[in-house]
Amino acid sequence: MPVFLDAQAADFEAAFTTLLGAKREDSPDVDAIVADIIADVRHRGDAAVIELTAKFDRLELTPETLRFSEDEIEAYCAQVSDADRAALELAAERVTAYHARQMPSDESWTDESGATLGWRWTPVSAAGLYVPGGLASYPSSVLMNAIPAKVAGVERLAIVVPTPDGVANPLVLLAARLAGVDEVYRIGGAQAVAALAYGTDTIAPVDKITGPGNAFVAAAKRRVFGKVGIDMIAGPSEILVIADKDNNADWIALDLLSQAEHDESAQSLLITDDADFGQAVAAAVDKRLETLERREIAGASWRDFGAVITVADLDEAAALSNRIAPEHLELCVADPDALCEKITHAGAIFLGQFTPEAIGDYVGGPNHVLPTARSARFSSGLSVMDFIKRTTLSKMTPEALKAIGPAAEALAISESLEAHGLSVRARLDALNK
Amino acid sequence: MPVFLDAQAADFEAAFTTLLGAKREDSPDVDAIVADIIADVRHRGDAAVIELTAKFDRLELTPETLRFSEDEIEAYCAQVSDADRAALELAAERVTAYHARQMPSDESWTDESGATLGWRWTPVSAAGLYVPGGLASYPSSVLMNAIPAKVAGVERLAIVVPTPDGVANPLVLLAARLAGVDEVYRIGGAQAVAALAYGTDTIAPVDKITGPGNAFVAAAKRRVFGKVGIDMIAGPSEILVIADKDNNADWIALDLLSQAEHDESAQSLLITDDADFGQAVAAAVDKRLETLERREIAGASWRDFGAVITVADLDEAAALSNRIAPEHLELCVADPDALCEKITHAGAIFLGQFTPEAIGDYVGGPNHVLPTARSARFSSGLSVMDFIKRTTLSKMTPEALKAIGPAAEALAISESLEAHGLSVRARLDALNK
Repeated sequence: MPVFLDAQAADFEAAFTTLLGAKREDSPDVDAIVADIIADVRHRGDAAVIELTAKFDRLELTPETLRFSEDEIEAYCAQVSDADRAALELAAERVTAYHARQMPSDESWTDESGATLGWRWTPVSAAGLYVPGGLASYPSSVLMNAIPAKVAGVERLAIVVPTPDGVANPLVLLAARLAGVDEVYRIGGAQAVAALAYGTDTIAPVDKITGPGNAFVAAAKRRVFGKVGIDMIAGPSEILVIADKDNNADWIALDLLSQAEHDESAQSLLITDDADFGQAVAAAVDKRLETLERREIAGASWRDFGAVITVADLDEAAALSNRIAPEHLELCVADPDALCEKITHAGAIFLGQFTPEAIGDYVGGPNHVLPTARSARFSSGLSVMDFIKRTTLSKMTPEALKAIGPAAEALAISESLEAHGLSVRARLDALNK
Repeated sequence: MPVFLDAQAADFEAAFTTLLGAKREDSPDVDAIVADIIADVRHRGDAAVIELTAKFDRLELTPETLRFSEDEIEAYCAQVSDADRAALELAAERVTAYHARQMPSDESWTDESGATLGWRWTPVSAAGLYVPGGLASYPSSVLMNAIPAKVAGVERLAIVVPTPDGVANPLVLLAARLAGVDEVYRIGGAQAVAALAYGTDTIAPVDKITGPGNAFVAAAKRRVFGKVGIDMIAGPSEILVIADKDNNADWIALDLLSQAEHDESAQSLLITDDADFGQAVAAAVDKRLETLERREIAGASWRDFGAVITVADLDEAAALSNRIAPEHLELCVADPDALCEKITHAGAIFLGQFTPEAIGDYVGGPNHVLPTARSARFSSGLSVMDFIKRTTLSKMTPEALKAIGPAAEALAISESLEAHGLSVRARLDALNK
């Protein structure tokens, strides 16, 4: 049974705070193991990667077979059904169109002092994308990570994907091809992250690594951060649905279950202004759980972390939502746009009852890599911005330097940074001669 | 003596690689100490902060005196000279004007399926800014961190600044006031970071912490990351000057020294297409080092990490610069705009001989918090973007769902995520009835 809370109850604040603070993830401490793996790959390169792949993935490779050949990729892609290919192509097209709009523009202007100021955006040169193997090997994640990189202009995009016992997912390889990925390596774990960060004889190093992974991958990403850039370390998925009574309870139940089925640590929350509707949704969840394929996982998530919260009105719903800062937020209410205006912290918002969150996982266009664990308070989902960086530009004329240089000199002196001041003063003296 | 390298020499590649890989920073391992401090502050709140401040800063505080009162701030501000105040005001005005242009716009559009897509930017609600105490207590850093936050629309901005033996820097307090900082606390170290991240009875928690600090502060920021957002962990400062022979050797020497004087681990590099000019600059550095106040620090930096590299032409200079990915890059050449076009990785570029880097530290307008240690390959300087986050928006119409829903369902099935598929299918079935 999930928790049922009434926002008007005397003990609500305590219960809600407990819900917000619930620790849903037990990360095993694998840092020492990962440190050894990274050191081994830095030291021995390909040999270490090959040895670790034999050990963990039961797969014997050579430097020549670390990378999928074009022919192999072609053969895997040919296994994909026409229907799945068409679906993946539509997804790729829509995600590309959305992300193309994210490219910011360069700016340059001359101010009243005569100084020319501005900035310029340039892409990361090379990026690496981690794709999990086995059950969680999602072609949609390949698109969501690779497309922003390619839209950003990343020249070289490499994927690492473990293939335990040599089994690869044809849809993952097709997604990589559709997204324009340049290199695909059949390796995984901390050793793959180390190879991308430091390079081996066969794998050139990259500048940025993104993509989801298990505890070993997450620990490896944390360790190589600084040497390369990384994306966020994602936690278990979450959804919050705000729904009024004029909704189909079964649809809302399925939306809640579509997060719950990801992971026993996932969290599905419903906020409604109608207690009876909340009960109806909970009943619909139970009914669907009778037959759902992943009912063990989804049932555990709903039982341990699910909640139905009844509020007095939608303003109260918005206020609670902003404290939750959900990864995914569905607004299934009569006027979703009006409610949307009141939301200040959320990774992605899905407006209206015809926008199930699953649309955003695949074909909506926005990215499905989103901030979890309340981090939407301070961070954003994956985007083109993660694969570009800004260089600021300044150009003084002699007149501009005369106008603003003395202030720089004064501040340098106040900070006891003499050479800073002198670098300005020497020029001013020459100009004032 | 710095290193002198000739890019045409047979052993250049090896020497340049060594230069790139030079480890300039020995971070003491303070992680265990910091973990204890954070746990103590989480557990005992104000009492722990007060006790640690007495121990490390030799300052006895109470919950009432943790925060500077408005009257105290007023009294400190009154100590600032008119000239320094005017300089700080000019800096604040110019930095504000530059950063105001960084605010991205919200977008919304309807695509051919009838779906309305877009995104919205919202500010972080509360941010905390760490300001070092003692010698490195720079008012310019207060402006550079606080102004982007305030331009972004951060409602509550708190500063922590240690005041060893009770000594505060009037310019730091004036900078805080000019930048619109809401709260200033006289605490520092890991305990201040913990107080900002987790809150105490007196200090409300924030969502994001930025600003420079020593090894303890850096370790504390790493530890609270996830609970709150943090900015980059900055390393020692660096400058690369690319200069042709038509420059004043003394000006270039002062530019190199203005980084070297920060820190013995700072790095100052010159690339020139004229070996004689390189020698002239090195001689000018030596001459300035005879009298410079911070000659011990600047001399050690220049001796241990400085380099003068002679190249065949400016294309080669650009190529080497892109491998260095410098924090600060000066282009002191006849046509700096043309050379600038060839630069792909740099934190900030200063164009032409009348733009000493020190201008950018204070009054140019761009931020002086920039990526160090080659991280300009994948990251940007501090900006308004660090204090806002993007929420993606999707709204399907029944027609849009009919158009793209089946593809989402197909992909969900291919990923064995049944509830995802059903959440779309249930709606499609109702619409198709």
